[in-house]
Amino acid sequence: MDFSQYFTVWNKLTTSQQALVNSSVVYRKEPKGTILHNGSADCAGLFLIKSGQLRAYILSEEGREITIYRLFDWDICLFSASCVLNSVQFEIIIEAEKEAEFWVIPPMVFKKLMDESAPMANYVNSIMGSRLSEVMWLMEQIMWKSLDKRLATFLLEEVAIEETNALKITHETIANHLGTHREVVTRMLRYFQSEGMVQLSRGMVTITSEEKLEALHED
Amino acid sequence: MDFSQYFTVWNKLTTSQQALVNSSVVYRKEPKGTILHNGSADCAGLFLIKSGQLRAYILSEEGREITIYRLFDWDICLFSASCVLNSVQFEIIIEAEKEAEFWVIPPMVFKKLMDESAPMANYVNSIMGSRLSEVMWLMEQIMWKSLDKRLATFLLEEVAIEETNALKITHETIANHLGTHREVVTRMLRYFQSEGMVQLSRGMVTITSEEKLEALHED
Repeated sequence: MDFSQYFTVWNKLTTSQQALVNSSVVYRKEPKGTILHNGSADCAGLFLIKSGQLRAYILSEEGREITIYRLFDWDICLFSASCVLNSVQFEIIIEAEKEAEFWVIPPMVFKKLMDESAPMANYVNSIMGSRLSEVMWLMEQIMWKSLDKRLATFLLEEVAIEETNALKITHETIANHLGTHREVVTRMLRYFQSEGMVQLSRGMVTITSEEKLEALHED
Repeated sequence: MDFSQYFTVWNKLTTSQQALVNSSVVYRKEPKGTILHNGSADCAGLFLIKSGQLRAYILSEEGREITIYRLFDWDICLFSASCVLNSVQFEIIIEAEKEAEFWVIPPMVFKKLMDESAPMANYVNSIMGSRLSEVMWLMEQIMWKSLDKRLATFLLEEVAIEETNALKITHETIANHLGTHREVVTRMLRYFQSEGMVQLSRGMVTITSEEKLEALHED
């Protein structure tokens, strides 16, 4: 399938803008674990995600992580072109959480399209609004929800993404998603196990009662 | 002074777009404490702030607050026109923290300008990027900084805004800015007092050592 299908503003660009994109777009395939963007020093361009899973996270000085949002097939990765967005002043890291295939529109082409085209600028606006909404959602979770509820929500998301109840994930990885310490996650998971919600084994968390997790998540 | 001075994209609009804004812009003056925008149900329009101080905050189901950002003279209030920004999906409340004078560009005029004009759409982009950067900054503070550091930072900001070391502010109000409970703020302020950083009296917090607060803030 052609990249223009993944670029929903395509039909609103002029012929010469389309030609410019066509002549500059680059296809990339990166293995799981690749860091695709590392803070404001990096500026690879706009990513149109064909397949895979990207994770955007921030890092504390002490090396703690928290996942801000994730991107999937058909999503657009905007902050990998953060140099074009002058007012965007934060350090975010984007990694391929699974093997990822995507097209890259180079920063200068992206900037030219934004400057010239109201539909393109509004397209970026719309993506920015979505990311801001995700960050605000996360802020509310962190401020008002206890960690047990956030852990329940995270496990249910993983079940939906992986399409299995048997999650291959370490306590350390879960802690990095939620912005907490491994020990805290281990303690909480053991409590979940004692309540019959999950079954723990080496490198695995198996969800045994989605209903009980749902109840906690919705509480 | 004319409102167009406060609308930095003005010179990039066409004559007919300028005429449209001219014929629809409304001047408002609201007393301290007025709720100017209350979640996604409201959509007053884009505010160009002539003078005053606005506070954007979120509210938990239990009535707890946390300040997300503040706006001052010359700032633009975007989320008071959130109905125009379809991808913006969060509930934010905006109140006049001090008496505020501002011009309002109605939502439908704002939408028409964005649809037609790349400079206008990029102007909105730039504001959105700034707000997102502020939210990300706050997220980092909440995740990685302890409350004593956040309280020190907040008091130093207040000193800068109010241009006095004698702050007329209650512990309850500080708690609502920081997203915590009054008791927690009171305990921390008493500790600050014992360390010679502040002097507490009824409805007042007087900063007695900016240096010590700075040291805590930068730590």
